[in-house]
Amino acid sequence: MTLGFSFERLAEDGEARAGRIITPHGSVETPAFMPVATYGAVRGLGPEELAGVGAQILLANTYHLHERPGDDTVRALGGLHGFTGWRGPWLTDSGGYQVFSLGDRMKLDDDGVTFQSPLDGARRTLTPESAVAIQEALGADIAMALDECPPVEGDAARARAATERTLRWAARAARARRREDQWFFGIVQGGAFPALRRESALATVGIGFDGYAHGGLGLGEEPEQRADLLAEVNQVLPPEAPRYAMGIGRPKDLVAAVARGVDLFDCVLPTRHGRHGVLFSHEGLLHMRNARFQNDGAPPDARCDCPVCARHSRGYLRHLLQKGEMLGARLASLHNLRFYLRLLEQARLAIREKRFSEWAGDVG
Amino acid sequence: MTLGFSFERLAEDGEARAGRIITPHGSVETPAFMPVATYGAVRGLGPEELAGVGAQILLANTYHLHERPGDDTVRALGGLHGFTGWRGPWLTDSGGYQVFSLGDRMKLDDDGVTFQSPLDGARRTLTPESAVAIQEALGADIAMALDECPPVEGDAARARAATERTLRWAARAARARRREDQWFFGIVQGGAFPALRRESALATVGIGFDGYAHGGLGLGEEPEQRADLLAEVNQVLPPEAPRYAMGIGRPKDLVAAVARGVDLFDCVLPTRHGRHGVLFSHEGLLHMRNARFQNDGAPPDARCDCPVCARHSRGYLRHLLQKGEMLGARLASLHNLRFYLRLLEQARLAIREKRFSEWAGDVG
Repeated sequence: MTLGFSFERLAEDGEARAGRIITPHGSVETPAFMPVATYGAVRGLGPEELAGVGAQILLANTYHLHERPGDDTVRALGGLHGFTGWRGPWLTDSGGYQVFSLGDRMKLDDDGVTFQSPLDGARRTLTPESAVAIQEALGADIAMALDECPPVEGDAARARAATERTLRWAARAARARRREDQWFFGIVQGGAFPALRRESALATVGIGFDGYAHGGLGLGEEPEQRADLLAEVNQVLPPEAPRYAMGIGRPKDLVAAVARGVDLFDCVLPTRHGRHGVLFSHEGLLHMRNARFQNDGAPPDARCDCPVCARHSRGYLRHLLQKGEMLGARLASLHNLRFYLRLLEQARLAIREKRFSEWAGDVG
Repeated sequence: MTLGFSFERLAEDGEARAGRIITPHGSVETPAFMPVATYGAVRGLGPEELAGVGAQILLANTYHLHERPGDDTVRALGGLHGFTGWRGPWLTDSGGYQVFSLGDRMKLDDDGVTFQSPLDGARRTLTPESAVAIQEALGADIAMALDECPPVEGDAARARAATERTLRWAARAARARRREDQWFFGIVQGGAFPALRRESALATVGIGFDGYAHGGLGLGEEPEQRADLLAEVNQVLPPEAPRYAMGIGRPKDLVAAVARGVDLFDCVLPTRHGRHGVLFSHEGLLHMRNARFQNDGAPPDARCDCPVCARHSRGYLRHLLQKGEMLGARLASLHNLRFYLRLLEQARLAIREKRFSEWAGDVG
C-alpha cells in the first residue's frame, strides 16, 4: 500500500459505485471525469477556473511533456503540481498511445517502441521501464503502465499477441518502480474478445497494481459490445481497486460505463468540441457558430450552472468563435467541461440515493 | 451636460492631473489606461479577470464590430455592456483609423470614406454621421468623432487639409448625435505642426465636446516632439474636460504624456506583446520564449502583484508559449495589462502626493 493513498467505496447501486480516492494532493470523488491537460494546461484554462467548475484531478500526456519541455524541466520546476500550478491530483498516461499513433514512424518489438520524433526527427525509444522513469519524473499522483493497444477490429491472434506483450511489459514496469508516493495502474487489453480480456485482467491482477484500466476501448466498437467487455473484466477486477476506462467518450458512454462499475474517465471531447464551437447542452449538441445564434441573447444552456452560462449569451459566444477570438474557445471549453463534471456529480448522487438506473435512463 | 457623466479633477502636480470620470456604468480614476477589446473581448480575457488586474474602462473597435457581428446585433444583445459582459464603462473609437489603414481599398472625400470590406468585398461608406449612428448602436459610454489622420511626416498643406476636414466632420458629427446617455469626444489633429494643432484644438473646443483627444500621434514622431505637441494643445484645451492621447504607447510614453496633462490612454502593445511572448517587467522587456527561461522557476516579474506572477513560473510560461498553448498568450497578456494598469495607479498616487516628477524619473 502506497503511503497517503486510499480508495474507499461509499455506496453501490447495481454495479455502479460511488467512492473516494485519497491522494497526498487531495481527494477525488468517484466516478470522476479527468480533464485532459495535454501540454500541462487544459486548453486556455487556469487552475482556479478548473477547480471552479468542479475538476478534481487532471490528466497530462506523458509523451507530449517528455518531448517538450522534457521531464527534467518539469521535475526541476516542482513536478506537474509545481510546474502547472494545479496542486490537486494528477494522472499521467504512459505515453504509449501517442507513440503508437505515429504509424510508420514507430517500430514495436518486445523491448519497447522505437520512434522518430515528429519534433526534431531524432530516434527515441519508449520501454516499460522508461515510461515508469519519465512518469516518476513528472510526479503525477497516478501513473500508468506502458501497454500495447491492438485494433478493436483485429483478429484473435493479433489481439492475443498484444495482450501478452502488455502483460510482459506490465511485469517489467512493476519491477521498475522507484517512487513510493505514486499510485501505479495496470492496463487490461484483449481487443474485442471477452475471454481474452478476462484472461488479461486476471493476469494483470496477478502482477498487482493500485488500480486497473480498461485499454483499447472507445476506438469504434459498438456501445453494447463495449458495455459487455467492461462488465466481463470488472467481474474479475478486485472491487477494492479503482477502475479507469481510458479515453471514453461521449456523455452517454460515460454513464453506460459507470453502470458497469467504472470509476475514472478522461476524454478530449469537451475541450476539442469547445475549440470547434460545439457545445454540450441539455438539448443536445449546439453548433454555436450557426447563424441562427447571431442575435440569440439566451445563455448557451439555460439549465447550466457554469460561469459562462451565468454571464454570456449564445450571440456573444457565436461572435467570438466566428472571429477566432481566443476567449470563444476558452469559454466553450469551460462550459463543456462543466457539463461533463456535472454529469459525474449527478451520477455520484444518483448512486448514493440508489436511483442510478432511473437517472441513467434520462441521459441522452 | 450629459446626464450621469462628470469629470472631477482631484489633484494636480505640475501639468499632470489626477481625476475621476463618472459614467452611468461606473467611474474611472484618471490618468487611466484602457485595454483594447478589438472584437469585444480583450484577447482571451474575461470581464472578471480584467477587473481583477485593475481595468476600469475598455475600448472596443467600432470598425471591427460593425463588420462582425454588426452593430444591430450588438444593440439587440444589450449594447457593448450586455453583449460582452463587461458592465463597466466602454469607449469606442470612430472606426476611421481601421478604414484608413485599408490603403488602396479606401477612397476619401469630403462626404466620408468609401471602402471595400476585406471581409466580403462589399462597398461600404463611413461618414461622420454614420460613425455616430454606429457608435450609438454599440452603446459605449464614450464615443469618438470621425477624423482624418494625416501622416506625421506629411507636409504642411496635407496636414492642414486633413485638419480642416476633421473640423468639418466634427461639426457634422456633433449635429448628428441622438443619444443623451453617451459622452462624445472630439479629436485634435494638425500633424507635427504645433501651430496647426493649437488651431485645431481651439476650433474643436469651439464646436464643443465632452472631452478631447490628441489624434495622429504615436505614429513615428520623436518622444520630445510628441511631448511638445501634447503640451501645446493641452494649453488651449479646457482643463475641466478629459484629455485622451489615442494609441500611445510604451510605458515611458504614457508617463511623458501624463506629465503633459493627459488623462486617458489605450494601446494594443500589452496584449500584442503578450501574444508574442514578450513580457513587461521591472527589468525591462522579457522575451519569455528564450531558452534561458527553460528551467527558471521564478515568477515572470518578482515585483509584480498580478495573478500570473503569484502562481506561475517563467519556465511554465515559456513552455506554454513555445507549444502555442492558448493559456500562454492569455497569461502573458494578463500580466502585461497589470503592468500598464499598475503604472497608471502609481502615476495617480504620485500626482496626489505631489511627487510625480520624481516618480516619473524612475520609470524606464
